[in-house]
Amino acid sequence: MSLIQEKVNQAIEILKEQDTDLWLTFVRETSGVRDPVLDFLIGENDLTWHSAILLTRKGEKIFILGNLEKDTAERMGVYSEVIGYDKSAKELLRDTIIRLAPRQIAVNTSRNNVHADGLTHSMYEELRDYLAGTPYADRLISAEPVINAMRGRKTQTELARIQKAVDITNEIYAKTFAFIKVGMTEIEVADYMHALMEEYGVGYAWPRENNPAVNSGPNSPVGHNGPTDIRIEPGHVIHFDFGVKYEGYCSDIQRVAYVLREGETEAPIEVQRGFITIRTAIEQSRGAMKAGVTGNSIDVISREVLTDSGYPEYMYALGHQLGRVAHDGGALLGPLWEKYGDSPNQTLEIGQVYTIEPGLAVSQGYIGLEEDVVLTKEGALYIGEPQREIVLIGR
Amino acid sequence: MSLIQEKVNQAIEILKEQDTDLWLTFVRETSGVRDPVLDFLIGENDLTWHSAILLTRKGEKIFILGNLEKDTAERMGVYSEVIGYDKSAKELLRDTIIRLAPRQIAVNTSRNNVHADGLTHSMYEELRDYLAGTPYADRLISAEPVINAMRGRKTQTELARIQKAVDITNEIYAKTFAFIKVGMTEIEVADYMHALMEEYGVGYAWPRENNPAVNSGPNSPVGHNGPTDIRIEPGHVIHFDFGVKYEGYCSDIQRVAYVLREGETEAPIEVQRGFITIRTAIEQSRGAMKAGVTGNSIDVISREVLTDSGYPEYMYALGHQLGRVAHDGGALLGPLWEKYGDSPNQTLEIGQVYTIEPGLAVSQGYIGLEEDVVLTKEGALYIGEPQREIVLIGR
Repeated sequence: MSLIQEKVNQAIEILKEQDTDLWLTFVRETSGVRDPVLDFLIGENDLTWHSAILLTRKGEKIFILGNLEKDTAERMGVYSEVIGYDKSAKELLRDTIIRLAPRQIAVNTSRNNVHADGLTHSMYEELRDYLAGTPYADRLISAEPVINAMRGRKTQTELARIQKAVDITNEIYAKTFAFIKVGMTEIEVADYMHALMEEYGVGYAWPRENNPAVNSGPNSPVGHNGPTDIRIEPGHVIHFDFGVKYEGYCSDIQRVAYVLREGETEAPIEVQRGFITIRTAIEQSRGAMKAGVTGNSIDVISREVLTDSGYPEYMYALGHQLGRVAHDGGALLGPLWEKYGDSPNQTLEIGQVYTIEPGLAVSQGYIGLEEDVVLTKEGALYIGEPQREIVLIGR
Repeated sequence: MSLIQEKVNQAIEILKEQDTDLWLTFVRETSGVRDPVLDFLIGENDLTWHSAILLTRKGEKIFILGNLEKDTAERMGVYSEVIGYDKSAKELLRDTIIRLAPRQIAVNTSRNNVHADGLTHSMYEELRDYLAGTPYADRLISAEPVINAMRGRKTQTELARIQKAVDITNEIYAKTFAFIKVGMTEIEVADYMHALMEEYGVGYAWPRENNPAVNSGPNSPVGHNGPTDIRIEPGHVIHFDFGVKYEGYCSDIQRVAYVLREGETEAPIEVQRGFITIRTAIEQSRGAMKAGVTGNSIDVISREVLTDSGYPEYMYALGHQLGRVAHDGGALLGPLWEKYGDSPNQTLEIGQVYTIEPGLAVSQGYIGLEEDVVLTKEGALYIGEPQREIVLIGR
């Protein structure tokens, strides 16, 4: 069974579970604006004209699209009914919906999760126009719960790909730590990592400009920034944020190194204290993760580890889900800030993959670790070996 | 001046010309859903949290975004005001709009052009919530005219990149025609073209799966389909549809070859007649293109050349604009079919780049040519040499 078949079948199981009659994905010219769920429903293909994918609680899998793309849709072997058209999708889609007579039509609109929000405003209005005069125009609901469940609950195929992405990331990190020398610039280090990515044949989990982020010392701007001409010097903490994409699935891992000064055999106590605080925050958060708890309840634990130790809280969420993109949406291990919407109130489910990534600044630089974990019945398990000690450069 | 600066300045000139006070691009997590205008406004960067780019008729260039991404925005050197935030963009954006007091707020929603339609339904609703209680909630209009003008009117930098993409495409075609032998499969031919793309260091104007399309003989499915295991045989018309991306800008070109049977020195009369009809349709359409005429008026000319010669009309538009994507949106050389919305009624402007791509079937296969042209004061000029004769294979 292909991954697309796997995920489409899973979606139908989720519709049954959530008692939702119809999930409608309605798109056009996806080379321009691409609904993120298409990766699951049709893979990397694009659709040119108005197209609709209808999945129902009863198991129907219907694909309406332009005739010139019908063959491609049929060759996928996923959809039980592929209906092509030449001039207009309007009547076809309306008639198909009337035939299915759904109590609800879940569409891809969501304030909380961008990956459940692929329907543009004009397409939403157009859909309502298509359905004008039928009872169905007023039965549109958000498909966010369907999409969150489908994106979140990773299949074995998906987990294997994430594992591989994480393994490759860790190998590249190990080679990079052996490569780094005092006097190199952040950009030189990033170039080396890019070359290794090419060797491994992996893509970028987020754009190349700031992947990896490499921050050497306290003057390097931390955040979603690219590496700079700042040189690595003794006494610097070097912070990395790096993720690769393997067969469509991402890793997202932060690491920390310290560059020894002459005479030093370990990092200064301030750096060690910061590192231990971050490790503790990660371990305590991970230990509390289980199905049914809210994402916010985990964020609170980590945040308190830092503030109880006298550090300021980090101005971002503790962790996000990981999958086809680095920020995969759905339940978030985050604070209850307006910008995060309702996602920190959503609950954890078995099969979800999260990052855990607290951070703090010390006078030598930025200490931020990020580990990727999968939620199982036995709790949250690390995917790949976590960083347990500061990497020492120049020993 | 960078291309981003060039296009942002152009956008402000367009706001003046169209007497529109404010153009607002409102996005979040663009790794998930990416508003197509971001390519022009920020390049390939992604934005994580709710972000707003405000360009005004008076020349203000304001960027509101998460603090962790503020540095990247400042380093672009494009925006006169970069405002960062930690927890919520809401008050900042509302207060900024109140300060600007615009008569209209153009937002990225459009039925006609997907590339002017990056605002999702939920973001539209959220923006209206932000503005609730102010007069501005009801001043939202479509930015389609602004975006169509900006995307359509190519700067010299943009035209030079398209020219280069076309030149490389033609070189790859020439090498491919020399490579083709009877007995090869469509997939083998496509593989060869992919290898050449790698050599030239160019990307795909549309996804690799069906780029190039290679159709050998009458049994190969024409449309947006990938190459198959069908083998090239004497007596086949081979049709290609192929486009590359060079520094973010696309080519999109169709070519036709004929595989000689033993004893043949030219293509059968049926193939020649089809080819001449297509060439005539292209030349007559190109000759009629000038600023101010509707796209539909050009489509009609080509369509009539075919039907007057007894061929059925092709079930798609004669031509589309070309730029950052193969189907670049805006005015379309198309029929007045519902699926094309209002775009065939829009008028041609100097600086726009179009494809012209009529097609017809003969018993030996599919004859479709596609040429890329730029509209100048002197009329529509070919970008690169058009195909004037059928390529003969096996001579």
